[in-house]
Amino acid sequence: MELYDLELSGNCYKVRLLAALAGIDLTLKPVDFLAGDHKRSPVIDLNPWGELPVLVDGGTVLRDSQAILVYLASAYAGHAWWPDAPAAQGDVMQWLSVASNEIHYGPNSARLVDKFGYDLDKATTLQISERILGLIDQHLQSNEWLAMGRPTIAECAVYPYIAVAGEGGIDLTPYQNINQWMARIKALPGYISMPGVA
Amino acid sequence: MELYDLELSGNCYKVRLLAALAGIDLTLKPVDFLAGDHKRSPVIDLNPWGELPVLVDGGTVLRDSQAILVYLASAYAGHAWWPDAPAAQGDVMQWLSVASNEIHYGPNSARLVDKFGYDLDKATTLQISERILGLIDQHLQSNEWLAMGRPTIAECAVYPYIAVAGEGGIDLTPYQNINQWMARIKALPGYISMPGVA
Repeated sequence: MELYDLELSGNCYKVRLLAALAGIDLTLKPVDFLAGDHKRSPVIDLNPWGELPVLVDGGTVLRDSQAILVYLASAYAGHAWWPDAPAAQGDVMQWLSVASNEIHYGPNSARLVDKFGYDLDKATTLQISERILGLIDQHLQSNEWLAMGRPTIAECAVYPYIAVAGEGGIDLTPYQNINQWMARIKALPGYISMPGVA
Repeated sequence: MELYDLELSGNCYKVRLLAALAGIDLTLKPVDFLAGDHKRSPVIDLNPWGELPVLVDGGTVLRDSQAILVYLASAYAGHAWWPDAPAAQGDVMQWLSVASNEIHYGPNSARLVDKFGYDLDKATTLQISERILGLIDQHLQSNEWLAMGRPTIAECAVYPYIAVAGEGGIDLTPYQNINQWMARIKALPGYISMPGVA
């Protein structure tokens, strides 16, 4: 099973993190992003979106980090990381949407501006970040984990771009519950980091 | 089972559409959005995000339209609309992320500017729309449906804000495959529309 991977991508880190935590073997295929290899064969043939990560597992080819998390957890980790009961799936799913929506356009995009020079409106990214970090911090006031009272793929989806938010000029100091939650994640057996995680 | 609902919200329409197509009974609780009732009790207590829709099914409370689709399909529609095999879930999940990400910040946001006067950068919403509509049109060139070769909650998640894209000043005429796909959706047994759907 191969993951077309970029070390500095938080989206790729989501998948590497789940694999490490759940003991799933992945063969990493580093893609030279700066050379534009994600826009050329073979990556563009596997993913017309021209984005990383891409997972290839035999005949199964998936783009989108959240979809890859669902697939890997479902295929290789029983129901520990992605539950199968309807209400539990709905609970986790809420956080997969937060990852695709507010985290992507908030902390991820702020970092794209500061670290990679993307031409995005920085003020908007900070505004989205402040709102979502406040909501998450409030949620974690009375919850140790995002969903289900235990670590799930919700953590793998939401944590990475919060953990590197400093690279987008976002100060996490005010978010005490988020900081404690990040410490709990770092203490999980098998945890791995990525460059830029404080 | 109650859906806190706004008729003009494409996110609420996603849920109403699945319920209609899959024969799931919902009691609609209209929320006076213009009066700000989504920011007050009881909605804000059910959903601190202050957004619609919110689903209440006994003790299960869910925000986020994609999470509600997963829950409803899983709890009340067998595996017809949300499959349980890992690769199939991954396939559909890719499109739930497209709904949270590109559709939200593309056609949905363009319509928020034009129809509701939101202060967003219209040019950015059109740029995101053009890219994603092109990719979806390309995908539908060789696929009748977004995932699995049949209608799933991917359609319920992605179709609504494309169907009302004209209200955001987006012309769908060039996207021939999308137009044919929308016609197939409208022909599904039980299909319901919403205001603004051409």
